[in-house]
Amino acid sequence: MKLVLLSGGSGKRLWPLSNDSRSKQFLTLLQGPSGSLESMVQRVWRQIGSAGYESDACIATGKGQLDLIRNQLGAAVPVILEPERRDTFPAIALAAAYLYSIQGVSLNETVVVLPVDSFVEDRFFTALEQLDSAIQQSGAELALMGVKPSYPSEKFGYIVTDSVSNPLTNRETNGYLPIEYFVEKPPERQAELLLSMGALWNCGVFAFRLNTMIDLFIEQGLPIQYDEMVKQYSQLNRTSFDYEVVERVKHAVVVPYDGEWKDLGTWNTLTEEMKAPIIGTGTVCAESHNTHLINELNIPIAVLGLSNVIVTASPDGILVADKKASTKLKEAIACFEQRPMYEERRWGYYRVLEYKKFSEGHEVLTKRICIKAGRNLSYQQHTKRKESWTVISGEGELVLNGRLIRIRTGDVIQIPVGAAHGLKANLDLEIIEVQFGTELVEEDIIRLTHSWDETIASVTDPQLL
Amino acid sequence: MKLVLLSGGSGKRLWPLSNDSRSKQFLTLLQGPSGSLESMVQRVWRQIGSAGYESDACIATGKGQLDLIRNQLGAAVPVILEPERRDTFPAIALAAAYLYSIQGVSLNETVVVLPVDSFVEDRFFTALEQLDSAIQQSGAELALMGVKPSYPSEKFGYIVTDSVSNPLTNRETNGYLPIEYFVEKPPERQAELLLSMGALWNCGVFAFRLNTMIDLFIEQGLPIQYDEMVKQYSQLNRTSFDYEVVERVKHAVVVPYDGEWKDLGTWNTLTEEMKAPIIGTGTVCAESHNTHLINELNIPIAVLGLSNVIVTASPDGILVADKKASTKLKEAIACFEQRPMYEERRWGYYRVLEYKKFSEGHEVLTKRICIKAGRNLSYQQHTKRKESWTVISGEGELVLNGRLIRIRTGDVIQIPVGAAHGLKANLDLEIIEVQFGTELVEEDIIRLTHSWDETIASVTDPQLL
Repeated sequence: MKLVLLSGGSGKRLWPLSNDSRSKQFLTLLQGPSGSLESMVQRVWRQIGSAGYESDACIATGKGQLDLIRNQLGAAVPVILEPERRDTFPAIALAAAYLYSIQGVSLNETVVVLPVDSFVEDRFFTALEQLDSAIQQSGAELALMGVKPSYPSEKFGYIVTDSVSNPLTNRETNGYLPIEYFVEKPPERQAELLLSMGALWNCGVFAFRLNTMIDLFIEQGLPIQYDEMVKQYSQLNRTSFDYEVVERVKHAVVVPYDGEWKDLGTWNTLTEEMKAPIIGTGTVCAESHNTHLINELNIPIAVLGLSNVIVTASPDGILVADKKASTKLKEAIACFEQRPMYEERRWGYYRVLEYKKFSEGHEVLTKRICIKAGRNLSYQQHTKRKESWTVISGEGELVLNGRLIRIRTGDVIQIPVGAAHGLKANLDLEIIEVQFGTELVEEDIIRLTHSWDETIASVTDPQLL
Repeated sequence: MKLVLLSGGSGKRLWPLSNDSRSKQFLTLLQGPSGSLESMVQRVWRQIGSAGYESDACIATGKGQLDLIRNQLGAAVPVILEPERRDTFPAIALAAAYLYSIQGVSLNETVVVLPVDSFVEDRFFTALEQLDSAIQQSGAELALMGVKPSYPSEKFGYIVTDSVSNPLTNRETNGYLPIEYFVEKPPERQAELLLSMGALWNCGVFAFRLNTMIDLFIEQGLPIQYDEMVKQYSQLNRTSFDYEVVERVKHAVVVPYDGEWKDLGTWNTLTEEMKAPIIGTGTVCAESHNTHLINELNIPIAVLGLSNVIVTASPDGILVADKKASTKLKEAIACFEQRPMYEERRWGYYRVLEYKKFSEGHEVLTKRICIKAGRNLSYQQHTKRKESWTVISGEGELVLNGRLIRIRTGDVIQIPVGAAHGLKANLDLEIIEVQFGTELVEEDIIRLTHSWDETIASVTDPQLL
């Protein structure tokens, strides 16, 4: 059995902590077993390890999340990189082609696809075995995990089984039930009816035999070789796996799971799983009950006389919400247009301290940049901005227009428009960068070389100060 | 009649907008007559002008508020500057000595002392005339304004008159009543009783004949000349005018005032007078009632599903409070220890973008500094920090160790430890300053010269770049 974890989404439902570059699964807000905080992706990866599947699991994701995944799970985590973000069918297709043509996985082997942000107990992962047996024994093309609903939610999809001809007692014998049909996000009345019929929640966990997918590719004229699939990726339809596969297969079964499963997609549900009421600098008065404060800013927050409230502050913005109202967040922040103010990268992270646009037409962006020891920024040029750097901590090496310069705490460097510059941290480096130009966007960057060895090779004047 | 406005306080009851450098009377949150926002001090000064008293009024305050008062009321506003902050008796004594020995005000003239942050209707100021007549006609040493209470508050002081022998009908004839005694902040039951007795709120407005005060100085051995009073100011007792004068005079009268008077000292009371529910960047959802959002940061704030709440964000911190609970603010923020993150000065203002202390022992403070066209920073040195400046807007002249250098948008300047530097803005100048050193405090400053003429006179190398 192979596990493919899907890591997608750039949702704003956990704004201001989640943004286009930091999806909800990377927020380190959950209590880990050692007492430290962990993110959803760290929790799931840890649980997969405990269940003994780590060497059979890989993560399918896009470039935008690669650095974050490696920072949180380690550089060795196996990643299937989508050339661009499309939808779940192309992502799963790419993973299947990878398993088949690169890893040489047997066509008979079961592949389980699951979201990287399920909040479940450890035994959910041991229950994946039942998906494997269901696929191998039932002859079905698809097996889904179906969670026994705890309330008639309007937010989830439901899996309806032929419960009359297959009463739940039968489950004991083979562990799975044939699926009759699906109902997506029903109104509460219908959800209640579905519960009484024994319908199950679709938690987005699918299993199939690898050849089911490979046969489908052949049928659809899609490549079965990974390299070819990568090349053609941008031509694949932007369709979901649900639409392209789940709703079309003739024979699908569901494995019922009677345990805790949560979608921590809103502040209301996420804070239920947060043990500490305060993360960051601030105070919540004793009279406040069930109030959570998360503060990533370096100024204090005081919360007085408010219960059942979530207060979250990040460089992107500040949310103050009654927890029940936090489900309406997306609409409320639709009017905010802003660049990400915090991003994690392969080399470290940056935080925007201030952005200002002047009436004269130029813009100024002040950032603090942290480059981890041993990491480097690519050798690059900007066409529309100059930069000034004040090194506020650490040591490193700068290549500026072919000159190698050693830099350390307290140094001030000017990078004119068009100047080629690359930087490597020998000790953790922190820099205050002031960008100054006519259009300050991350895209104004010409990468000359990526690795530090290549950058060093371009040095023409090794003037070590 | 002369008016002395007392501008004191550095309260934290309106944190995070008020701080040690910006008292509540300078917050521009009130709706002015022209539609623009005005501060309490601007409102009172405007009302004094409308009542025709502007040329008879002056403001007694400390150095810390001088720049703010001049920025808000204009450079010509007459200010009596306290050499240091002590209490209300020394402040009023200094003002009396000033009126007597510098302005040559007649000893028979009435002096009215009033707080700069009373929130009242315009007719309150025309009613000051009655204080004048009371002093001139009653023979009393002191006349107070007494506000007719609108509810039995526990927060105010009460003035009790002999209402039996002086029924309110008598008021029509002379406009004042003899004061029997004072009650400070009574519990609600007693406050109710006081209301039934016709007691009045003490709103901190006192009138006396100038010679009453001068006689007191002579009796106490205090100087009556302003210059001498300034010299001895640091030896004056730190006592309040209430303690030193009001509670000790033999004959005091009160002028009843039956109109609106408010102490806008908490977010609860202040927001009642704010017309706009939102100041700054942000959104409050339609379901929220009586919720106010004030945002001085440049990141957006979303408030969802919360009524009767105040959300205030400034560079100093963020407050989220039920309005009723905002009276407990002082205790809640007692644990926050922080330097001011925003300060207005004679030359403009600065805002701290970030402060960071490193484990290696050094500190880094990143500020945006704005210097108004024509203004200058004094010629100064720092002993414990170096600075890097990136000019992000405007033009100016820099004197650095005796060299005159013209600077403009985009320039980067380094100020080493101990370097003498002065700066004048020719156009409004904005600078990102990174301070770097072992102890970053405002006090680490040796002022060599103050005016730009003096600074220019010290230039030894007029190298205009």
